[in-house]
Amino acid sequence: MLEQLKKDVYEANMELPRRGLVTYTWGNVSGIDRESGYFVIKPSGVDYDKLTPEDMVVMDLDGNKIEGRYKPSSDTATHAELYRKYSEIGGVVHTHSPEAVAWAQAGMDIPLYGTTHADYFLGPIPCARNLTDEEIEEAYEKNTGLVIIETFEERKISPIYTPAVLCKNHGPFTWGKDAAEAVHNAVVLEEVAKMARFTRQVNPQVSPAPDNIKNKHFYRKHGKNAYYGQ
Amino acid sequence: MLEQLKKDVYEANMELPRRGLVTYTWGNVSGIDRESGYFVIKPSGVDYDKLTPEDMVVMDLDGNKIEGRYKPSSDTATHAELYRKYSEIGGVVHTHSPEAVAWAQAGMDIPLYGTTHADYFLGPIPCARNLTDEEIEEAYEKNTGLVIIETFEERKISPIYTPAVLCKNHGPFTWGKDAAEAVHNAVVLEEVAKMARFTRQVNPQVSPAPDNIKNKHFYRKHGKNAYYGQ
Amino acid sequence: MLEQLKKDVYEANMELPRRGLVTYTWGNVSGIDRESGYFVIKPSGVDYDKLTPEDMVVMDLDGNKIEGRYKPSSDTATHAELYRKYSEIGGVVHTHSPEAVAWAQAGMDIPLYGTTHADYFLGPIPCARNLTDEEIEEAYEKNTGLVIIETFEERKISPIYTPAVLCKNHGPFTWGKDAAEAVHNAVVLEEVAKMARFTRQVNPQVSPAPDNIKNKHFYRKHGKNAYYGQ
Amino acid sequence: MLEQLKKDVYEANMELPRRGLVTYTWGNVSGIDRESGYFVIKPSGVDYDKLTPEDMVVMDLDGNKIEGRYKPSSDTATHAELYRKYSEIGGVVHTHSPEAVAWAQAGMDIPLYGTTHADYFLGPIPCARNLTDEEIEEAYEKNTGLVIIETFEERKISPIYTPAVLCKNHGPFTWGKDAAEAVHNAVVLEEVAKMARFTRQVNPQVSPAPDNIKNKHFYRKHGKNAYYGQ
Repeated sequence: MLEQLKKDVYEANMELPRRGLVTYTWGNVSGIDRESGYFVIKPSGVDYDKLTPEDMVVMDLDGNKIEGRYKPSSDTATHAELYRKYSEIGGVVHTHSPEAVAWAQAGMDIPLYGTTHADYFLGPIPCARNLTDEEIEEAYEKNTGLVIIETFEERKISPIYTPAVLCKNHGPFTWGKDAAEAVHNAVVLEEVAKMARFTRQVNPQVSPAPDNIKNKHFYRKHGKNAYYGQ
Repeated sequence: MLEQLKKDVYEANMELPRRGLVTYTWGNVSGIDRESGYFVIKPSGVDYDKLTPEDMVVMDLDGNKIEGRYKPSSDTATHAELYRKYSEIGGVVHTHSPEAVAWAQAGMDIPLYGTTHADYFLGPIPCARNLTDEEIEEAYEKNTGLVIIETFEERKISPIYTPAVLCKNHGPFTWGKDAAEAVHNAVVLEEVAKMARFTRQVNPQVSPAPDNIKNKHFYRKHGKNAYYGQ
Repeated sequence: MLEQLKKDVYEANMELPRRGLVTYTWGNVSGIDRESGYFVIKPSGVDYDKLTPEDMVVMDLDGNKIEGRYKPSSDTATHAELYRKYSEIGGVVHTHSPEAVAWAQAGMDIPLYGTTHADYFLGPIPCARNLTDEEIEEAYEKNTGLVIIETFEERKISPIYTPAVLCKNHGPFTWGKDAAEAVHNAVVLEEVAKMARFTRQVNPQVSPAPDNIKNKHFYRKHGKNAYYGQ
Repeated sequence: MLEQLKKDVYEANMELPRRGLVTYTWGNVSGIDRESGYFVIKPSGVDYDKLTPEDMVVMDLDGNKIEGRYKPSSDTATHAELYRKYSEIGGVVHTHSPEAVAWAQAGMDIPLYGTTHADYFLGPIPCARNLTDEEIEEAYEKNTGLVIIETFEERKISPIYTPAVLCKNHGPFTWGKDAAEAVHNAVVLEEVAKMARFTRQVNPQVSPAPDNIKNKHFYRKHGKNAYYGQ
């Protein structure tokens, strides 16, 4: 079942080591089929160089395994919460890419310092709060998803216009219209996080970019008046 | 038309990912034929690994497309302004290379800290000011070019002796006698920007290099008394 | 003798340059056969690209060479002390990987800043003290092992739950159930050390991660209630 | 003439880009034949990927070209001064490798922070002073060599035990018993410079390593009581 989606999700997973975003098995990508409501995700702790499309695990949004010989990624419940809440999302990625992790461990939003950031994200990359003892004990991965959602709700950030988050003391999640775009956003996030680190090193007192350049670059690439690309 | 120039500009564009200066499609190179007044530029948002010499777009300096099945780079109007103002320039490059972007996002000139810098640029790499709301709304890319020119005029910097600029909160433009030299300068700028970041990290109170070593190295490689190379 | 162990230890050694952890000959891996009490280690100062499984040296825990045409690694006595003290250890690694060396040269523990660290190490990576003049003169490499053990004893750290140490002004040792796992831990340590450096750069006032997320991630992968992986 | 030396010097030059120490043509290696008093050096400004052993230039110590169709490296006179003063030296390297350049641009010695440094250099890597206007005008490259020698003389540093120097606002020179060892030392210097930068970032108040560990590691690898290697 969902053979094409499995292939797409497999390919999106394999892009992570090719782009230098993962060490060992530290990442996972999923993609959803909105018609059936099933999503396909990497199995837990399986080496990328042994992975095949057939190893992908099919899950429903209540956390039931529909198909697959492996256990799904340990972060599956976080993916599920994002799919349940945001119907526009078709793919989700989690990595421990070091530049994004640095900001997550620092417990800080990544400020929007320039156009590279603004070409993809319409504001700072938010850093979500730590989970409480109760949230961790009760359902760590599911509550990670709920705290991400809480962050976007409370801060009135659009998850479509800012398709990335940092989980405090942990690492990034990104998403997109499908698995490939979610990975693309993970690559961009890592690059933007690195540039932001370099920027603060060069000028510790730096301010974020003005709103006019932020809006210009974001809407040059996104929305009905976009004119970037073909 | 301009088949050799298209090949040269194509090759110069392909050098950007080979040198690690671009992620995805974040860069563009152009080259001009001064006889016809036409310049050739990368199409907007096309993947480097799908690019061919035939995909290059031919433009005139008033922004009219002369030939090509694709839309030109979204930064085309910036290239055009530089070609219109500076008749010695034969090639222009724009990238989001991370070390140069860091200084652009920091809103700071790259100080001339040593001979690697002085071998190519006769002074700091200037950081141009932000555009105003009006400049962005009216003609963002064209005005980016005009603000670059304003920077060199007001600060009395020779664009031939310092063939690079940082656009604040955005990134670098470099140029040269042709597309290949413009890319060469983009590579050097990235290396010089990295060295400058490292230098300030090691010694936050560092001063620029003395004028005597700056002049010695620049004129060892440039001008009528140059003796570097064959 | 011990042909399979020699192959395993050879393979584990070769993984060090593949993972970018060593320059020239700056690293060594050993593995022990607990039945015979012999361990197998890389020869001293031999280039990785000339190494073969047959070049591995067989030693006993009293420092006698049992087999091999080469002299063993100069750090052999450190490996031996760790094997003598900790019967659960099957492999030991020493490198000069730059991110771990930075913390060793800084004379600082690597704080546990996030889940990447907590997935492998249940607390900070301890930095062991310098050796005294007497300890260096008497038996430098053996005493390096004893000072590592002293560090874990005095600070009541479990070497099984935190399989890594920094030797002050020197570099890291890691270990594991066999040579391959010891190398795996060396790779993780380097990544964790880098993330910690980035984190402090972004936020010099950063605090370690809360205990609840540390324990959650460590025990998600380790111990009888682990549920990460297959 | 000197065909074997040309091959050795060619190979040593080619090792620079392989080890990531040079961008474009920013480096040069020479080797000397003490019997004839001639040394062989890379031609000036020739691309590494077009270089052949036959392109190497043969010079005498008074700066006369003995053989070769190309002009020698612009830094030839610096190499010559080092060979004239230090008869134990058989090879010299100059690069603009970024980590060593950072310390040179910062105008600072690289402190001896640990054993990686002490395995090769018996003390800080000295940073030589800037040249005066007169020294630059009169004979820049020759005086660069003389200022290096002055640094070692005045500070009573042995060039054999510390085979590297930083020229202020410029970059490193290293040397060794032959061209290959000089390149080896250039690679080590770059790694040591990087580790020192990382170390200061992690702990801005860090002190140099104690003398006992410095001496232990240096003499473990050098001199009559060395026991590292085969």
